[in-house]
Amino acid sequence: MDTTATAAPPASAQPLYRQLAAAYRDAIEDGTLRPGDRMPSVRMLMQRHTVSLSTALQLCRHLEDEGWLEARPRSGYFVRRRLRARLPGVVEPAQDQAPDPAAFVGIHATVSAVIAQGQRYPAALNLGGATAAPEHYPTEALKNAVLRCLRQSPTLLTTPGSPNGNPEFRKVIARRALDAGIRMTAEEVIVTHGGIEAVNLALRAVANPGDTVAVESPTFFGLLQVLESLGMRALEIPTSPSSGISLEALELAIATYGNIKAVVVVPNLQNPLGAIMPDGRKAALAALCERNGIAVIEDDPYRDMHCRTTPPKALKAWDRSGNIIYCASLNKTLAPGMRLGWMAAGRWQARVAMLKFAQSRHNEEWSQIAAAGFMATSAYDRHLQRLREHLREQRERIADTVAASFPPGTRLSLPDGGAMLWVELPGGLPSRLLFEHALQAGIRIAPGSMFSNSQRFDHFIRIGCGHPYSPELDAALRRLGALTAQLLDGAGR
Amino acid sequence: MDTTATAAPPASAQPLYRQLAAAYRDAIEDGTLRPGDRMPSVRMLMQRHTVSLSTALQLCRHLEDEGWLEARPRSGYFVRRRLRARLPGVVEPAQDQAPDPAAFVGIHATVSAVIAQGQRYPAALNLGGATAAPEHYPTEALKNAVLRCLRQSPTLLTTPGSPNGNPEFRKVIARRALDAGIRMTAEEVIVTHGGIEAVNLALRAVANPGDTVAVESPTFFGLLQVLESLGMRALEIPTSPSSGISLEALELAIATYGNIKAVVVVPNLQNPLGAIMPDGRKAALAALCERNGIAVIEDDPYRDMHCRTTPPKALKAWDRSGNIIYCASLNKTLAPGMRLGWMAAGRWQARVAMLKFAQSRHNEEWSQIAAAGFMATSAYDRHLQRLREHLREQRERIADTVAASFPPGTRLSLPDGGAMLWVELPGGLPSRLLFEHALQAGIRIAPGSMFSNSQRFDHFIRIGCGHPYSPELDAALRRLGALTAQLLDGAGR
Ligand SMILES: Cc1ncc(COP(=O)(O)O)c(C=O)c1O
Ligand SMILES: Cc1ncc(COP(=O)(O)O)c(C=O)c1O
Repeated sequence: MDTTATAAPPASAQPLYRQLAAAYRDAIEDGTLRPGDRMPSVRMLMQRHTVSLSTALQLCRHLEDEGWLEARPRSGYFVRRRLRARLPGVVEPAQDQAPDPAAFVGIHATVSAVIAQGQRYPAALNLGGATAAPEHYPTEALKNAVLRCLRQSPTLLTTPGSPNGNPEFRKVIARRALDAGIRMTAEEVIVTHGGIEAVNLALRAVANPGDTVAVESPTFFGLLQVLESLGMRALEIPTSPSSGISLEALELAIATYGNIKAVVVVPNLQNPLGAIMPDGRKAALAALCERNGIAVIEDDPYRDMHCRTTPPKALKAWDRSGNIIYCASLNKTLAPGMRLGWMAAGRWQARVAMLKFAQSRHNEEWSQIAAAGFMATSAYDRHLQRLREHLREQRERIADTVAASFPPGTRLSLPDGGAMLWVELPGGLPSRLLFEHALQAGIRIAPGSMFSNSQRFDHFIRIGCGHPYSPELDAALRRLGALTAQLLDGAGR
Repeated sequence: MDTTATAAPPASAQPLYRQLAAAYRDAIEDGTLRPGDRMPSVRMLMQRHTVSLSTALQLCRHLEDEGWLEARPRSGYFVRRRLRARLPGVVEPAQDQAPDPAAFVGIHATVSAVIAQGQRYPAALNLGGATAAPEHYPTEALKNAVLRCLRQSPTLLTTPGSPNGNPEFRKVIARRALDAGIRMTAEEVIVTHGGIEAVNLALRAVANPGDTVAVESPTFFGLLQVLESLGMRALEIPTSPSSGISLEALELAIATYGNIKAVVVVPNLQNPLGAIMPDGRKAALAALCERNGIAVIEDDPYRDMHCRTTPPKALKAWDRSGNIIYCASLNKTLAPGMRLGWMAAGRWQARVAMLKFAQSRHNEEWSQIAAAGFMATSAYDRHLQRLREHLREQRERIADTVAASFPPGTRLSLPDGGAMLWVELPGGLPSRLLFEHALQAGIRIAPGSMFSNSQRFDHFIRIGCGHPYSPELDAALRRLGALTAQLLDGAGR
């Protein structure tokens, strides 16, 4: 149902779309526009406010970026449903204190204990992962692509691969990267064993053991393990669930410690927060690092899982001097079993190509050919479209159930894509405790202690949203909520 | 034709088989037994010298180990053909001087220039590689194994792999390792992206940047690249084409420099020399390193390409304290396109598993399942048998043609397996020059400068023996010989 926002935009120095956005935000906050309501169409906005098409579009996208609206393909913009509005968002980090000094990472023992413990319950419902369920991937089409490729060229199995990867695959990757705002040639693509090998090579190219590397906090545990295994120091920079890594805190860290060799960021659908950095902050981050001679490693495995109308850009789109090494992966978006990753290494291209060759030679050829065949067609776009829709629904339903069944004080920020939710438990409840009780109840989650070298996130959990919503999943989430309440009671006693 | 060796074994303190061996060696050297002659059968030896079966067998194997006899499956032992006897063996290295001090490696520029130059002549006959031609591998059987596996379990493409590798594959590997004298459980096997990733992980597990690592000299250029990329120092130890790394020189180096963290050796069919270390030297090397607290990394990708009646053992067979990290690969013996390697890391097992996970996660599953399916059957043994026979014939024919067409002063040692010959050019002729002229004539070889951080082997070439012998190959070898003579003349002028 359409609603009329009558507030006249205040005259000010702000761009017109921002003035209008403030008015609509007020209308949502005071209940004039309610969750689920349809936003006036772009054409209506143009007429009502006598603004251009571009201003009307900017208005909607800005409100979407800020989380007030959500776009539904072919239906327009809607005020976000807020059953989960009962849950406040995860607290924004303080940005005005210098981050803790860099420290060598000691996360591996924690991570492998968690993984090993999880594997002891193979029958548990696995909500600890970050990938979607197999049924969300184009298994049949990929299988057929592999079969076709091996029938046509069986000697791919018995001849070494092409330098830096298969030429066709690298072409498709370069073409698809345009969607992220990256302009590059196929020759710049280096194919790797997953995104994780790409991040390893990038770090080895720009830093040495003992060097300090700035990372988001919380961050993907795998990245911390890489730093640990390379003997590098992590400097954890507070990161916002809505806008990503804090530039203010990063600047403060540069001013305070001044020895940062590189920064690793996941600008799109950050793991575990789900943050997408707004364009302005991406531009500012790229410039800040370039100015300070800090190499940027962009780790971007989740971008294609966004559910915005305008696809978020890669940070690399703002790279002007080859200072950003871009790393990506198909393990989340296309095929978790194929272990295909890739990177474009800017001014470290030659060094990365050398390191890759010395570390594992060129990737196997046939999986690249099969993936390239599929990715060159519109079937790939249809797959991504479906994946995004499924994940959106799963995220929202899980968030709703969490809101309905977790005790008061629980916090959660709903991201604009991806396959995970980051949940703050009430009362500082140690998530490792919940993790263990949940496992015994047949449910696997990821405890927050995996996502930082500090104890800061020990009362958070990450819930994977990769499974289709089902009665079993519903029961598991309610069970998790009840367990949280019980443990909280127990702790309070 | 049988021949009678009448020399009576001299009475001495030597074991009987050695006394007999000396007599037969004399008979070969003085022409009583001629190249191509059949050695008396084991039964005849037992009767003639009234010795036990075991002594007769020891006699034959010893002479084979020393290169006087060759075994032909199902036909017995023969005195080695010596058309190539015109060629003296590659000079044995001096072992009584301390090796040059350890140095950071700067080989990558050389290696990649050679590779890039080679790639500019894609039509050239490639004698620069170390793998066999595709027709020597069971392409169809492997293809069918992959197809079967993906038809049965297509979701392998879309689900992550198993920790440390597929359990079935690890089982087959552990079982097959018995043939190398290695006793281990499937759990000790860590699957890697080729042997090269295994060597990387092994080095990262036992040494840090700046540390000194002893290597054979000459050695596989890929190993030097790994050291370079990891910022480690290489200490080159003279290595013999007949008995492998010099233990005397290694001991001297330990005494002189005393800071050696690890030694990397290819004890079986060393690249490029083709040396197989005799059992005694393997045992001594294992003990020497254990005594001196030096980690041993055994790189063993070629063992299955031997052509001895008794398969050479892995150095790891003498490991008593977990001090030897064993690295192997199927890229030379089964499927160069599948990039399957594996390792057993002794007392560094947990650390290597951690490094592997942090570096590239677990290997893709389906290629392991396909390989395991094939390797569990006798078809794999038949394949290896055929591969060995083909390679033996190819090596011998190439050695013959080299002997017939290269100028006097050329030296060559014929190894007991593998797919390469190491040739010393006469007159110190720079092999880089021959490499370039050969490329222009449509022939690709590997210049010796790739195989050392020093200039010691700049007048050597490695010739790949992976291709079936053909008129084209014959002409190419003769052309190489003629070019060598021409360049030598030019240099002499
Ligand atoms: C941020 C981030 N980077 C990298 C990876 C690893 O990617 P891949 O599976 O392609 O190696 C993950 C996987 O969870 C991730 O979350
Ligand atoms: C001695 C040695 N080790 C390791 C390798 C690399 O093995 P892979 O192809 O399995 O990575 C080679 C290949 O030439 C080699 O000669």
